[in-house]
Amino acid sequence: MAANRTINVELGDRSYPIVIGNGLLGGSFDLTDYIAGPDCLVVSNEMVAPLYLDMLKDNLAGKTIDTITLPDGESFKTTDTLHMILDKLVDIGANRDITVIALGGGVVGDIAGFAAASYMRGVGFIQVPTTLLAQVDSSVGGKTGINHAQGKNLIGAFYQPGIVVIDTETLTTLPDRELKAGLAEVIKYGAIVDLEFLGWLEDNIDALLNRDAAALAYAIERSCELKSAVVAEDERESGRRAILNFGHTFGHAIENCLGYGEWLHGEAVAAGMVMAAALSGIDEESEKRLRTLIERAGLPIAPPEIAADKLLDAIGRDKKVQQKELRFVLLRQLGDAFMTSEFDEARLHKICAASV
Amino acid sequence: MAANRTINVELGDRSYPIVIGNGLLGGSFDLTDYIAGPDCLVVSNEMVAPLYLDMLKDNLAGKTIDTITLPDGESFKTTDTLHMILDKLVDIGANRDITVIALGGGVVGDIAGFAAASYMRGVGFIQVPTTLLAQVDSSVGGKTGINHAQGKNLIGAFYQPGIVVIDTETLTTLPDRELKAGLAEVIKYGAIVDLEFLGWLEDNIDALLNRDAAALAYAIERSCELKSAVVAEDERESGRRAILNFGHTFGHAIENCLGYGEWLHGEAVAAGMVMAAALSGIDEESEKRLRTLIERAGLPIAPPEIAADKLLDAIGRDKKVQQKELRFVLLRQLGDAFMTSEFDEARLHKICAASV
Repeated sequence: MAANRTINVELGDRSYPIVIGNGLLGGSFDLTDYIAGPDCLVVSNEMVAPLYLDMLKDNLAGKTIDTITLPDGESFKTTDTLHMILDKLVDIGANRDITVIALGGGVVGDIAGFAAASYMRGVGFIQVPTTLLAQVDSSVGGKTGINHAQGKNLIGAFYQPGIVVIDTETLTTLPDRELKAGLAEVIKYGAIVDLEFLGWLEDNIDALLNRDAAALAYAIERSCELKSAVVAEDERESGRRAILNFGHTFGHAIENCLGYGEWLHGEAVAAGMVMAAALSGIDEESEKRLRTLIERAGLPIAPPEIAADKLLDAIGRDKKVQQKELRFVLLRQLGDAFMTSEFDEARLHKICAASV
Repeated sequence: MAANRTINVELGDRSYPIVIGNGLLGGSFDLTDYIAGPDCLVVSNEMVAPLYLDMLKDNLAGKTIDTITLPDGESFKTTDTLHMILDKLVDIGANRDITVIALGGGVVGDIAGFAAASYMRGVGFIQVPTTLLAQVDSSVGGKTGINHAQGKNLIGAFYQPGIVVIDTETLTTLPDRELKAGLAEVIKYGAIVDLEFLGWLEDNIDALLNRDAAALAYAIERSCELKSAVVAEDERESGRRAILNFGHTFGHAIENCLGYGEWLHGEAVAAGMVMAAALSGIDEESEKRLRTLIERAGLPIAPPEIAADKLLDAIGRDKKVQQKELRFVLLRQLGDAFMTSEFDEARLHKICAASV
């Protein structure tokens, strides 16, 4: 078994390690070093808990463990579910030294993180992401939150965990469609900041789809490194961090038009990246290169059938709109993204009209 | 008219000024320097808005101003009221560059601050406190939040404002009872960290009760200085900051037993300080000195009639209980408070039994 790898997210007094390894939950990793008090609350969901909850508990020897199991799915990332967790914390008489542990995908991590941020104005928090998407994206960087009826992640907090524990073995039980959705964000990192990594992905996309453990471990490690570096530079997304939203303005618009849950987030982002690359006006060769890789990952390279005006309207409502001005993350070239409010409006309309 | 005074709260990149002056809202202070974007949302309540909203608006020239008026009172410091503000932000299509301005007392500031902390994971926030309690305590230091059915301030965030604007003229319309309740926290600062200030309060308590503008301005300024210094040392209350809770464990228990709103927070804290001083076992002379000052301020020096076991039970449930261990902020001597889990249990029981 390969040795564990550790990446440090450098955020001053909010710095924390991301530990990546195969079989970490199986007993090779003592989580109690990262739990200040005697108590923890594990937040999981009905899909993940039966698979990994007992295994996680084995790493919490000597701690008092309470658990709460949420329903599975983005549609439950609501204030009601948040209050289920907060009520649970109150019910068990949790003090400020409790540690909330998120065991699951992005939804579990986002809600549990916001609950940890809000309970008594902030208690301990640990991320144990079990989906590829959560491992390479949502568990890293401290974004937590819930959805509002009018938009995704409208309510939340920047709240960094004390540690992120990524056991790549949890990917063996991940449905194929979710594995692919996670690869969309992995490809994103190559597209926005690391052309060499993009090349590595082209060479290894089949191994990743076949769940080759070493390939997955490297893809996760490199993704976490790249994301951490961007986050360390701009924790609260006042500038640079926004490039992580490459493909997301289009992606959110697709999700919004379809209704959340119809397409997975990663699938919408995949199509969104192809659209954003097209809007960037980079050379045909590079555009094709990105599109081909996304297609080889088994991901959509075009939005579903949505009327252009509906899609454009949803894009305008996206929360990354600032100062009433529409902005996009575009590519100067592959491996080099930037945020801009200057784009070719005619081209945007053409891209949005292409699906119908 | 006296010149404005400015105190800087030193919190690194979250530092901010507290500006204190008489008639600031009347036009002498341009708030727009502290508002990054074109939009702001003023959160006020039905008591304060008719008095000061128009005046505040005059300081926001050139900005787009939306307002939301909350019902008045601690009983509305709930998740429902929080969501009224969040829904309003969504309804007006607020972006990340909006600034939320709290105009009112502690309840308005706490809820509006938590809404600002949570909307899109944090937008601009300004405090314009209009009660003495909010001016000397709740608006300073970044504690925001709402109550849970099971306890006060159980859900919230540490979220610092960009500026606190204290117009002492707003105190001219403050009901007598609320003025006195605010004085409880002012006296607290003297009791816990500044014996000299306590002496000044003894000399000036009548002037303060008579709303002498200069006396009030100095009391507010010194209170903000003392609180800021403690907060700068320990923003997230991992240690030292807890001394600001002197009298509060008893006070919260009183509020909890009576039902919130029956006694004002400051009144409960006043009686709580007398109880905490008694538990401290300081010399009789000092205990009497504090009690006399509190009494002269027109504040209660004993809890209302509550059965001892009920009060003790409420004390045990107080959220400052850590690691299942009961802690109190006690006095080594007047002007020198500390947090401890070591106290005379028999004396605690006696103090709690004294009210019946």
